[in-house]
Amino acid sequence: MFIIGEKINVMSKTIGPAMKERNAEPIIALAKEQLAAGANFLDVNIGPATRDGDAMMAWLVETIQGATNDAPLCLDTSNPSAMEAGLAVHKGKAIINSTSGAQERLDAMVPLAAKYNAMIIGLCTVEKGIPRDANARMAVAVDIMGACMVHGVPIDDLILDPLVMPICVPGAQNQANEVFESIRMFQQLNDPPPKTTLGLSNISNGVPPETKPLVDRTFLAMLAACGLWSAIADPLDRELMETVKSVGILQDATVYCHSYLEL
Amino acid sequence: MFIIGEKINVMSKTIGPAMKERNAEPIIALAKEQLAAGANFLDVNIGPATRDGDAMMAWLVETIQGATNDAPLCLDTSNPSAMEAGLAVHKGKAIINSTSGAQERLDAMVPLAAKYNAMIIGLCTVEKGIPRDANARMAVAVDIMGACMVHGVPIDDLILDPLVMPICVPGAQNQANEVFESIRMFQQLNDPPPKTTLGLSNISNGVPPETKPLVDRTFLAMLAACGLWSAIADPLDRELMETVKSVGILQDATVYCHSYLEL
Repeated sequence: MFIIGEKINVMSKTIGPAMKERNAEPIIALAKEQLAAGANFLDVNIGPATRDGDAMMAWLVETIQGATNDAPLCLDTSNPSAMEAGLAVHKGKAIINSTSGAQERLDAMVPLAAKYNAMIIGLCTVEKGIPRDANARMAVAVDIMGACMVHGVPIDDLILDPLVMPICVPGAQNQANEVFESIRMFQQLNDPPPKTTLGLSNISNGVPPETKPLVDRTFLAMLAACGLWSAIADPLDRELMETVKSVGILQDATVYCHSYLEL
Repeated sequence: MFIIGEKINVMSKTIGPAMKERNAEPIIALAKEQLAAGANFLDVNIGPATRDGDAMMAWLVETIQGATNDAPLCLDTSNPSAMEAGLAVHKGKAIINSTSGAQERLDAMVPLAAKYNAMIIGLCTVEKGIPRDANARMAVAVDIMGACMVHGVPIDDLILDPLVMPICVPGAQNQANEVFESIRMFQQLNDPPPKTTLGLSNISNGVPPETKPLVDRTFLAMLAACGLWSAIADPLDRELMETVKSVGILQDATVYCHSYLEL
């Protein structure tokens, strides 16, 4: 189970202004903190970034990679031009976050994955909103896979995100089961199969703050047992990362030793 | 996910003597404490009980059920005569803990499940020891199912236990994955499928005490996602029971409300 650290986000009260002012220090500090806590990738979310997006994303990629021995980044914007500006300077294999099943998004983002040999997150929705069940998610997943094949993106560079509704939304409580089923089904789609991810904390939006981390880490362990490849999550949540490490031990992905939590 | 509370055990320093002296008070207190914490069944383990087994098991069943509004018990002994003595006085549907795939055990225990309309735990081993992989567990499971069919025990009264080795035993770390796979495979065996259980804490035998509960509750959430029906576990582990309740919410088995941990 890989963790894509979610903390570098233009919506953050400290990081947003730092992005705009090209103030590297708090951004680098947060990047290093997430990596030290065990993040495998760092999400860099600049939002729609309609103004200044290209220069901001390129600066962020160079600034963060320059300070972190080229940590792999997950470039997060709906602006294709800003996405390309980031990919053009990214070292190693980046993640594009994201396309959906909407034709316009596929046309804009999938060719960038091919051109820059990047992985690409495919949100299993066409319009805004969350699909009804696992079958609806599969239908979109197949469309996204088709676009990857057309543009020459290897299927195991595709990272499908089934999307999940908060557990406390009335009438949506069964969505978590649909996500479990989606994750299992996605792995039957191809050999090698597409990878999978999920924005973990969406499940606990609206849950009381003292209960949110428990819901998140329990969901994470359950998703891991369904074969989830990665989660976009907060690596600074110590108990979440202890769960991630325990999952690694229980899946025989990392070798057990008594001090595995400290590694 | 149902929890079979494991605390009433002849090996306990307080409960063992209380069983022998017919001292009801600490046994009843521990029964009530486990039920209040959320246990759905109570294991009553008297061991081999070669002397006094019949009278002890019958006394325990009557004593515990009499004080707990007939809480359902999981009668745990390798002594078939003591098992029958307990079943004869048990009110409601008991669980027999256990048979294995060994012919002698099947012949002794499965007819009791039929006679007393009890559920029965089937350990997926023939001799002492843990099967090598999921396929070996399946082979034993099919033998146990066959015995249930011969004796007229409905398959959904059979509770298969795949057995698990401690995660820290050298060379056995992949056993947890074999258990995940076994739990999934067992559910394909029949319609309605056999139920499943696992002695949860076996996974963390030998793990440092401060890490054991984390391993147990992470394993539990993963097992739940594989479809595990129940676990034999410690309901007085508050964080374990919070995980159980969160699993129930995420599986849409219990209705979400903000205070679900208090229910």
